[in-house]
Amino acid sequence: MEVGAFFSSLKNCFKSITRIGTDDPRRVLHSLKVATALTLLSIIYWGRAVYGITRLVMSVMTVVGVFEFSVGGTLCKSVNRICATLIGGALGVAEQHLATALVEIEETVLLLILVFILGAITTFFRFFPKIKAIYDSGVVIFMTTFLLVAFSKHGVEKIFERLLTILIGIITCTLISIFIWPVWAGEDLHILLASNIETLANCLIGFEVNYFDNQIRDKSVLQGYETVLKSEATEESLTNLARWEPAHGFFRPRHPWNQYKKIGAFIKKCASKIESLHDYLNPEIPISSEFKFKIKKPCSRIITELYKALKVISSSTEIMVHPSAAKRHIEKAKAAAEELNFFLETVSLEEAKFLSIIPVGTVAF
Amino acid sequence: MEVGAFFSSLKNCFKSITRIGTDDPRRVLHSLKVATALTLLSIIYWGRAVYGITRLVMSVMTVVGVFEFSVGGTLCKSVNRICATLIGGALGVAEQHLATALVEIEETVLLLILVFILGAITTFFRFFPKIKAIYDSGVVIFMTTFLLVAFSKHGVEKIFERLLTILIGIITCTLISIFIWPVWAGEDLHILLASNIETLANCLIGFEVNYFDNQIRDKSVLQGYETVLKSEATEESLTNLARWEPAHGFFRPRHPWNQYKKIGAFIKKCASKIESLHDYLNPEIPISSEFKFKIKKPCSRIITELYKALKVISSSTEIMVHPSAAKRHIEKAKAAAEELNFFLETVSLEEAKFLSIIPVGTVAF
Repeated sequence: MEVGAFFSSLKNCFKSITRIGTDDPRRVLHSLKVATALTLLSIIYWGRAVYGITRLVMSVMTVVGVFEFSVGGTLCKSVNRICATLIGGALGVAEQHLATALVEIEETVLLLILVFILGAITTFFRFFPKIKAIYDSGVVIFMTTFLLVAFSKHGVEKIFERLLTILIGIITCTLISIFIWPVWAGEDLHILLASNIETLANCLIGFEVNYFDNQIRDKSVLQGYETVLKSEATEESLTNLARWEPAHGFFRPRHPWNQYKKIGAFIKKCASKIESLHDYLNPEIPISSEFKFKIKKPCSRIITELYKALKVISSSTEIMVHPSAAKRHIEKAKAAAEELNFFLETVSLEEAKFLSIIPVGTVAF
Repeated sequence: MEVGAFFSSLKNCFKSITRIGTDDPRRVLHSLKVATALTLLSIIYWGRAVYGITRLVMSVMTVVGVFEFSVGGTLCKSVNRICATLIGGALGVAEQHLATALVEIEETVLLLILVFILGAITTFFRFFPKIKAIYDSGVVIFMTTFLLVAFSKHGVEKIFERLLTILIGIITCTLISIFIWPVWAGEDLHILLASNIETLANCLIGFEVNYFDNQIRDKSVLQGYETVLKSEATEESLTNLARWEPAHGFFRPRHPWNQYKKIGAFIKKCASKIESLHDYLNPEIPISSEFKFKIKKPCSRIITELYKALKVISSSTEIMVHPSAAKRHIEKAKAAAEELNFFLETVSLEEAKFLSIIPVGTVAF
């Protein structure tokens, strides 16, 4: 029995490993890329006695700390690491110059006071969300470089040695990251936005089938808006990383990455409208089937037109052309909504429910 | 003009620094605690020539990597770091034993293959969200320890030296973290849940005033549910950290931290009900003031009773007693809702709107 439990947990473990790999096969490639960088650096520093080992450790730390999944991430962390080394080193050298005028006991006290102040400041700055996200690993490098330079007698040499080791590590990572199966954060962001719009379109159709025909379609289609609403953090981090990437493929230099945030916000608005629409699928809310039958035709027209419009917008976003065909569909949807509005005014207050459909289309455009 | 712009940006910078500090003054204390740990370790390794410096750098890395804001975070990272060192070291020693039977060129090849395999595996495992959150810094330690031991001739000594340095760093951090102004993740979680319930209560009252009296009260009160909905990630990370903390104050050993997740989920449900309630504040939805006037009395009763119930639940959660008084309020709210229901059935389909109020209270209980 216990052996069975062991095997089943082993099977689960294996399953989640294959899922992580098959969800995005580029993850496997990324792992191989990092392993290649580590092996290359091990060959470079191979067999160089004591100094070889410390440099090897330094460059392994650089690879593990700097080599991110996307090119943008790798470049951002690389620049950050170089800056941290330079600033830490400069402060260390400055401290040494200051200390030449002091006797030894004074120098010790000065150094300890500096360690205390720098430690407090760097720790405090990690509480800023922006700094936390980008510069976190830089803090370690900054503090260790400062201490290494300040405590040793050959400060300036140490900086150059350290900088060289870090540079070799960073160059290896960057080259592998850009030239072997590159993963561009900008491309991922672009595809994510387009697919979010498509998800919303499917979600609308799913609502229609469910509301009017009482058929429960694929649940994942129905709750697509949740995925869209949750993608905000991913979008923001991808936008931040995309800025660091050089021009590539479709993306020219100075690509307007700021616009992606605005489009993302619009998509979020649409998704939350669709979310409140889905509240009406709640079986606790009684709606007569006669009433449903009456409004079915105009509602279906609205939804179909909006579906077409969203599909056009999604596909034209993907290939970066103007979604001119969408305007026609939205006009049609508006006309149908207007019609429905007239009909509802003669019936009851219920129209409020359906007015909420209209903004979906207009906002999307 | 430019000087003015410089000063205003300086002022903004200063403002955000003071905001980070005043939002949670414990952040300043935490920075001072980390600085104290760094200074103490600098004194320990002071002036011990070359070895002193490498050990100092190692222990500074330990402090920066291990000393987290809460006690739970510090303990979790400490254990993680010790494990990573031990596993990395053990693998390094194993490799050395294997290599004694090989000639030099074979050893080199074996080592490089191992570096490649371990690099690929550790990088791949970082894609698992759970591992990413807890063990990320451990990966660096694991790889560097393995390399340090495998590449050097005195493997076992190296491990003990490294382990000792890391242990001294960790003990310093843990002692300072627990005994000087400790920040308990469990306590923060407890307070967060209680305050979330209170926020929802205020939110309900805010809705009432806004809906029936058309007065816009403090916007922050109105949109409190957004804060509650967004606190999920914080709650989850606090729960994970709270598990690591020893018993302290109110919190006995084996405190049921799992229950906090369930309560958190209930609170989220309430918040999303209140969110959909707030959709009715949209001025685009026309509701006759006559109708509003008619339903005002029972609705106010429901809301007031639910408000009282939520307040009781919040305050009794805070001091860990059973919220027995809340049951009475919820019964009253249910009775009022029943009344409203009868009234609405005689009027129109509109009741659907108000049925959604009832679950708020029942779920909360």
